Amino acid sequence: MSRIDLNSDLGEGFGPWVMGDDAKMLSIVTSANIACGGHASDPETMFQTLVLARDNGVNVGAHPGFNDREGFGRRVIPMSPPDIGRMCAAQIGALIGIAALVGVPVTYVKPHGALYNDMMKHQPLLSAVMGAVASYPADLKLMILATADAKHHHTMARHLGLTLVLEAFADRLYTDQGHLVARNIAGSVHDKAALLAQVKQLLASNSVTTQSGKSLKLNADSICVHGDNAQGVALIEDIKALCSASV
Amino acid sequence: MSRIDLNSDLGEGFGPWVMGDDAKMLSIVTSANIACGGHASDPETMFQTLVLARDNGVNVGAHPGFNDREGFGRRVIPMSPPDIGRMCAAQIGALIGIAALVGVPVTYVKPHGALYNDMMKHQPLLSAVMGAVASYPADLKLMILATADAKHHHTMARHLGLTLVLEAFADRLYTDQGHLVARNIAGSVHDKAALLAQVKQLLASNSVTTQSGKSLKLNADSICVHGDNAQGVALIEDIKALCSASV
Amino acid sequence: MSRIDLNSDLGEGFGPWVMGDDAKMLSIVTSANIACGGHASDPETMFQTLVLARDNGVNVGAHPGFNDREGFGRRVIPMSPPDIGRMCAAQIGALIGIAALVGVPVTYVKPHGALYNDMMKHQPLLSAVMGAVASYPADLKLMILATADAKHHHTMARHLGLTLVLEAFADRLYTDQGHLVARNIAGSVHDKAALLAQVKQLLASNSVTTQSGKSLKLNADSICVHGDNAQGVALIEDIKALCSASV
Amino acid sequence: MSRIDLNSDLGEGFGPWVMGDDAKMLSIVTSANIACGGHASDPETMFQTLVLARDNGVNVGAHPGFNDREGFGRRVIPMSPPDIGRMCAAQIGALIGIAALVGVPVTYVKPHGALYNDMMKHQPLLSAVMGAVASYPADLKLMILATADAKHHHTMARHLGLTLVLEAFADRLYTDQGHLVARNIAGSVHDKAALLAQVKQLLASNSVTTQSGKSLKLNADSICVHGDNAQGVALIEDIKALCSASV
Repeated sequence: MSRIDLNSDLGEGFGPWVMGDDAKMLSIVTSANIACGGHASDPETMFQTLVLARDNGVNVGAHPGFNDREGFGRRVIPMSPPDIGRMCAAQIGALIGIAALVGVPVTYVKPHGALYNDMMKHQPLLSAVMGAVASYPADLKLMILATADAKHHHTMARHLGLTLVLEAFADRLYTDQGHLVARNIAGSVHDKAALLAQVKQLLASNSVTTQSGKSLKLNADSICVHGDNAQGVALIEDIKALCSASV
Repeated sequence: MSRIDLNSDLGEGFGPWVMGDDAKMLSIVTSANIACGGHASDPETMFQTLVLARDNGVNVGAHPGFNDREGFGRRVIPMSPPDIGRMCAAQIGALIGIAALVGVPVTYVKPHGALYNDMMKHQPLLSAVMGAVASYPADLKLMILATADAKHHHTMARHLGLTLVLEAFADRLYTDQGHLVARNIAGSVHDKAALLAQVKQLLASNSVTTQSGKSLKLNADSICVHGDNAQGVALIEDIKALCSASV
Repeated sequence: MSRIDLNSDLGEGFGPWVMGDDAKMLSIVTSANIACGGHASDPETMFQTLVLARDNGVNVGAHPGFNDREGFGRRVIPMSPPDIGRMCAAQIGALIGIAALVGVPVTYVKPHGALYNDMMKHQPLLSAVMGAVASYPADLKLMILATADAKHHHTMARHLGLTLVLEAFADRLYTDQGHLVARNIAGSVHDKAALLAQVKQLLASNSVTTQSGKSLKLNADSICVHGDNAQGVALIEDIKALCSASV
Repeated sequence: MSRIDLNSDLGEGFGPWVMGDDAKMLSIVTSANIACGGHASDPETMFQTLVLARDNGVNVGAHPGFNDREGFGRRVIPMSPPDIGRMCAAQIGALIGIAALVGVPVTYVKPHGALYNDMMKHQPLLSAVMGAVASYPADLKLMILATADAKHHHTMARHLGLTLVLEAFADRLYTDQGHLVARNIAGSVHDKAALLAQVKQLLASNSVTTQSGKSLKLNADSICVHGDNAQGVALIEDIKALCSASV
């Protein structure tokens, strides 16, 4: 990993409701995946989050999700791939519209929750998302999961003139194919020691040790972190320290 | 009126619900104010409307309104001017995102319903809307009502590097200040004969005869028409014929 | 069918949007499944529909659906059976609250769209819906599809002190198990002649001829009709005439 | 105050978002105003809050508000009094539907935020809310602000067969008419000492000392408390201690 990037899902409040400590997180991470009014957020929340991102010099990405605030974008809403492309285009545009008011560029897109998971499983959906991002009249990259299929994903993207950003997860166990082991499987979410070990391995060799014990090269550009609570935020500061030490 | 432009509010369906005959209207008008998911529409409806507009060679405008589908943007939702600017920016961006998928440019913005009326009454609100449109990273004009204050409005816009499009209403009686007489006042909405007479006067001298009988110069660039039902659509075809004859 | 009941989904407008000709339909059908603000409707639409139902002496049922107006309740939103029971309870309550203002009793519940289909396929879901209806502090029946499993369904309901109303479809081809053949299968939706023949058979012997040519006894209490357009409404008037003739 | 009742707005989360510490508050207060899916909440949140209320033996009230989660019911949405009555009826019904699943009675209604304030200012609106509550097919009281007009309010309610519950505020300065001094006026919100003094006065003589220094008899049945943060919760425990001491 030549440039150490830490990305996190932020700006996920809605109206009067707060989610996490965005101000703290934006003082740590280097890329912010900012909700766009689909699974979370609204114009005012987007604006306030974008101001914080700008003031912290954090790289801004659009974080579209299913239009389902009640389910926080974690439920698969049945939609065709073209419909999903249109939904993403509208949400990306919404954030970019507000970012223009703030004076901060939006440089990439990372889908959220069930949309992200589905996109990594179903190629027509990934194509639709890639198409929506590539056709947007701004220079946007797409952030997806670094898997064993990365080469194929890069080829798909190149045909659309799109650049991918590959991300790895600090806290999750991987399958041999580079997918995340489902959360309901024992051992799928790392404890602190395993998490920090995985980050060290990513920094040293850009690989992870999979479920079966193999070493899988990821060539990730960014590490995804979650600061859902004070303990999570403290852990990200540990990760940040590892990253700084590795430069 | 050097170029005869007819604009209409379109794409105002939502999910399974239809509003008016967009296909018919898009074969008549030259500019379409397309709802952006605030007072009406959703990504799929935006997409289908934009495809129709593109295929008919109709000029496309974003038509933001209060986030209030239940009230169809006809209720004033109390919001500060900056909040309204952010709301508009998000909606404009949403339409532009989908327009990029369709391959049609969005060239102007015209606010909807209660937002439009409020904007013409409250200068801080008009400033906020102007600011949101001017800061958008695309070349967008703003369509507002042609009133006796047009010169002042042009000055406000010029300071933001923004170009205005002024519109006149075919079917509404005007006050001496160039505002629309409220709908609940008798005589405020023209019958067919008065409407066509007003269009003729607009085409001949770009003026209207006001409530008090004065002639008011409007310098309008566009005429707003409503095709809410079959009768309304027939009337627009009459207006269109007058416009064609006047060229 | 000792009492000839015709039921239809009504009150499915939302805010400014209209769906079908409720006034006409309420002059024909004997039971109205009225949307509750989930897949369609809002307090004002519920109120207006309930007034029409009351004035036409039509039996009123609550018609809950997934909270998904954009998808009109036709998409399966992933939810656990208890969550679905709670969603139904809230929607039924909403309609009953407004019906009290109108002075008309709500006497039954019929789920809508994807919720109805899912409920007929998944017994835990059917149990949850039954539980929500049975626990409601009003005397409510539940309307479900008359299938070959009707006896089992009656038993499930009896344990909860709940009475079922079984409905048959006029326009749909049946499987041997009494389920509706999926719409995407050729021949699944009857033409006018086949539809009227199916109604005659229902009236004469309360049975349908299934996909494989067998006669399946349904013991239905009600026939579901759809008046989505003028042609559909005319067909319902034909069905109504058959029903009247059969009495 | 013969019976010391403490009421608080609870169940105001939505989907993934939390608002306040309901579990803690429900161990202190004696009446819970539970949001109904208008300004906050959803079926699942209602259910979980009702379970907590039931398990703590807390009296349950429906807490309807404008259908405006983004504005948290703090913005006046322009609606006619009859529309507001229907909106309230739907929300009250929704909560009662879910309360039936939980097995806890809903005994009163207290409107929220902008709806509450508007209702205390505009008699047609108060009448509409009273009508909606009175017509509901369950025995529900209506909680309103104890003001100098209480006698008149009781008369209005009696004509509808409705019982009122009058509430006083612990933390707010009163006008001589018994209305709350607007929050933007200096001194309108009491500090801890003034708040506890006001509670003592309410418990001793059911009166408050108004803005002009007069003593105003309130005859309140309940005291409204807000536990928005840990400090607020601690203060409520102090109030509770005063109440217990006064019995």
